[in-house]
Amino acid sequence: MTSQTRIAVIGGGAAGLSLALKFLSRGCEVSIYDPKVGSGASNVAAGMLAPASEANFDEPFLADLMEKASRYWGSFAAEIADLAGIPIGYQPTGTIVFGADSGDLAYLERASNYLISRGVSVQPLTLRERRKIEPLLSPDIAGASFISGDHQVNNRQFLRALTMILERSGTTFIASRVSAISELSTHVDLQCESGAEKPRSFDLCVIAAGAWSDSLFRMIDRSDIATQLLPVKGQILRVNADQNYGAPSHVVRGAVNNRPVYMVPRVDQEVVVGATMEEVGFDTTQRLGAITDILADATRVIPSIRESSLFETNFGFRPGTSDNLPLVGQVSGTIWAHTGHFRHGILVSPFTADALDRAIFNDSPPDWLKETTPNRFKLEVLN
Amino acid sequence: MTSQTRIAVIGGGAAGLSLALKFLSRGCEVSIYDPKVGSGASNVAAGMLAPASEANFDEPFLADLMEKASRYWGSFAAEIADLAGIPIGYQPTGTIVFGADSGDLAYLERASNYLISRGVSVQPLTLRERRKIEPLLSPDIAGASFISGDHQVNNRQFLRALTMILERSGTTFIASRVSAISELSTHVDLQCESGAEKPRSFDLCVIAAGAWSDSLFRMIDRSDIATQLLPVKGQILRVNADQNYGAPSHVVRGAVNNRPVYMVPRVDQEVVVGATMEEVGFDTTQRLGAITDILADATRVIPSIRESSLFETNFGFRPGTSDNLPLVGQVSGTIWAHTGHFRHGILVSPFTADALDRAIFNDSPPDWLKETTPNRFKLEVLN
Repeated sequence: MTSQTRIAVIGGGAAGLSLALKFLSRGCEVSIYDPKVGSGASNVAAGMLAPASEANFDEPFLADLMEKASRYWGSFAAEIADLAGIPIGYQPTGTIVFGADSGDLAYLERASNYLISRGVSVQPLTLRERRKIEPLLSPDIAGASFISGDHQVNNRQFLRALTMILERSGTTFIASRVSAISELSTHVDLQCESGAEKPRSFDLCVIAAGAWSDSLFRMIDRSDIATQLLPVKGQILRVNADQNYGAPSHVVRGAVNNRPVYMVPRVDQEVVVGATMEEVGFDTTQRLGAITDILADATRVIPSIRESSLFETNFGFRPGTSDNLPLVGQVSGTIWAHTGHFRHGILVSPFTADALDRAIFNDSPPDWLKETTPNRFKLEVLN
Repeated sequence: MTSQTRIAVIGGGAAGLSLALKFLSRGCEVSIYDPKVGSGASNVAAGMLAPASEANFDEPFLADLMEKASRYWGSFAAEIADLAGIPIGYQPTGTIVFGADSGDLAYLERASNYLISRGVSVQPLTLRERRKIEPLLSPDIAGASFISGDHQVNNRQFLRALTMILERSGTTFIASRVSAISELSTHVDLQCESGAEKPRSFDLCVIAAGAWSDSLFRMIDRSDIATQLLPVKGQILRVNADQNYGAPSHVVRGAVNNRPVYMVPRVDQEVVVGATMEEVGFDTTQRLGAITDILADATRVIPSIRESSLFETNFGFRPGTSDNLPLVGQVSGTIWAHTGHFRHGILVSPFTADALDRAIFNDSPPDWLKETTPNRFKLEVLN
C-alpha cells in the first residue's frame, strides 16, 4: 500500500474514526461509511479509561493491551484536543473502586490482589480517607480502594473532535450502511444500502462497525471467518448533579450485591451512571428493570445522586467476542477488521488503530497483532 | 351575557378546553390563550377518574364533588368521543387498591371503612381472588380491595378530542401567554406576551391556567383575591408493557411503605406509572430520587413491570389550593376562574365547567358553587 491508497472505513465510531485519522496522517484518501457518524456504542459509553478496574482474572493479554492503550491515551488525548481545537474531557483523576456488601468486598479484595500482582497501585481507603477524598460516597459500604492509574475521557467530545479533524481534512462521509462488499483481485467495491448509486472502488476497506460487523463479514465471498460477534446491550443513564451536593470527584465503580455499577463525573456536573451487561441480541427496549437496578445501586453508593436531574436514558450494543479480545487484523486480501472491542472501545481502539495502520502499511507492526487476528475464528476450526 | 358573547379562556388544559366547549354550545365566540394547548398538568396526568380512591378523610364536600363529576363523565365521555370522532380511552374497569405492608394495609382499611360509610362499594380481595383478577399483582403485598366505581380516561386522547372539536367549530387559538389583563366597565382587554399586536377585547375572560393562574390573578387591578395557588410537582413515567406479561387489567394504586404509587394501564399496553407529590415550586428537574422511588414501589407491587419498556419520563405542576377545593366562580365583573383542581383536573373539570358555564349565563347554576368561589381567599380575610 502507498500513501495514495483509497481506503473505506465501515463504521464511524471510536474504532473507525481513530483508524481513519491514522490513514489520514499517511495522506490516504479516506471514506467513512456510517448512517450516523459518532452514534452507536461509542456515543453511549461512559468513557472510562480503566485498564486496572476493567481487568479480569486470567486475561493477561487483554490486561496488557489495556495498559498499553491507556499509556497511549496520555499523549493521544492532548494531540486530538489540539488538532480539533476543542477540549475532550481527558481527566487523569483516578478511580474509586468499592464493594457494597461483604461479598462485594471479598471480590474487590481478590481483584485488588490480582492487580497488585500485576504491579498496579491499589490503595485501600479507610472510612476517614473515603470521607476526605469522596465525601459523597455512602459510609454504608463495606470497603473501597483508590486506583490512581484509571482515568476518563468525555467520549462524546472525543467523537466530535475526531469527526471535526476528519471533516476539515477532506475525509468523505457517506451516510449509508454498506449492503454489498465485492472483493476483486486489486480492489474492493462497496455498494450503499440505498442502492441508488454505483458501487465505489477502494484499494482496501476496514470493517469497524462494532456489534454490526458480523453482518459485514458475511458479505465477503471468500472469507471463511466466523467471528460470532455478540451484541452485549448496555443500558445507561446521564444525570446532572444537584448544585448543592455536586458530583463525585472521581470515577466511582464497583459492585452492589454482585451487580456492577459505576458513576463517571464529567467536568460540567454531568454524571454518567451505568451500565447493564445484557446478552439479549439487538433488543432496543429500555427495560424498566435495568433502570430500576442501576438507580437502586447508584443510590446505595452515592445517596445524593437522588437529588440529581435525569436527562438521558440510553442503551448501546457492545461488540463482544467469544474470547474477549478485539478483532484487529487482515480478513482477506483487501479487507481488514478493526472491531470487537467489547467494553473497551474508547480505551483500546486508538491504540489498536495505530497497530493496525502499521500492519496495513507494513510499517513495523507490533508482534501482538497475531493474537487479535480475525482469522482465529475460521469456519474450519469450528466445524 | 348573551349567546353572542365574546369569551377569552386563558389556559388550554382540561379545565379551559372543557369550559370552552360549553361556551361553544351556547354559540359564543371563544378564544383560547395558551402557548401550547393540551400541555401542562392535563397532559402529564394519568387520567384516573377515581372519586373513591382519591377521597380523603374530612373532605366530604370534595368527595361529593368528585362523585358527581364521575357520574357526569359517563355520558360526557361518549359525547366527546362522538363529537370528535376518535376514541378517548374511557374505561370503566374499576381500581384495585392495595397496601404493600401492614402499615399500608392499616391505612387502606381505614380508608375503606370511610368509603363504605359513604356508600361506596369496596370489595376486599383474598389472595386467590387477586390471583384470578389481576395475576400480575405480587402475592407479596399485605392486602388489596376492588373499587368498581373508579374508572379512567386516556387524558391525552381526551385533550386531543376536545381540541379537535373546538378547532372544527371555529374557536380561535392564540399561542401566547397573556401579559396584561385590563378590566374595563363593559369588557376586558387581554395583551399577548409577545406584545406585537394590540390588546383584544372580550365580554368576559376565564382564568383556567392551572398552577400558573395566580400570576394572572395578580394582573387584575381591582381584584383583592389572594389564592396562593401552590404548584404541586408530579413526576411520572410511561412504559410499554412487555408482550409476554402484558399490562395489568385494572388501575392498580396504593401505598408502599406509606408512599403512594399507581399504575394505569391503557388499552394499547401503555402503562402510566406515577406519581410524586412535591411542593418544590416550579422546579423543572426530573429528580433521580423520585424516579428511583416510583420504580422501586411499582416493581414491588407488579414485579413484571421490570420487563416493560420505558418511553417517557415527565413531570407536571398540579394547581393546589390551601383547602384542596378548586377555584370556580367569579373573580370580578368580567373575570372568572376555572382552576385549582389540584390532582383532580381530568375528573372534576368537565363537571365544574358545566356549573361555571351556567353561573356565567345565569342558567340555574348549582348551589354548591358558593363553596368554590375564588373570593373565599380575599386579601382582607387573610390580613
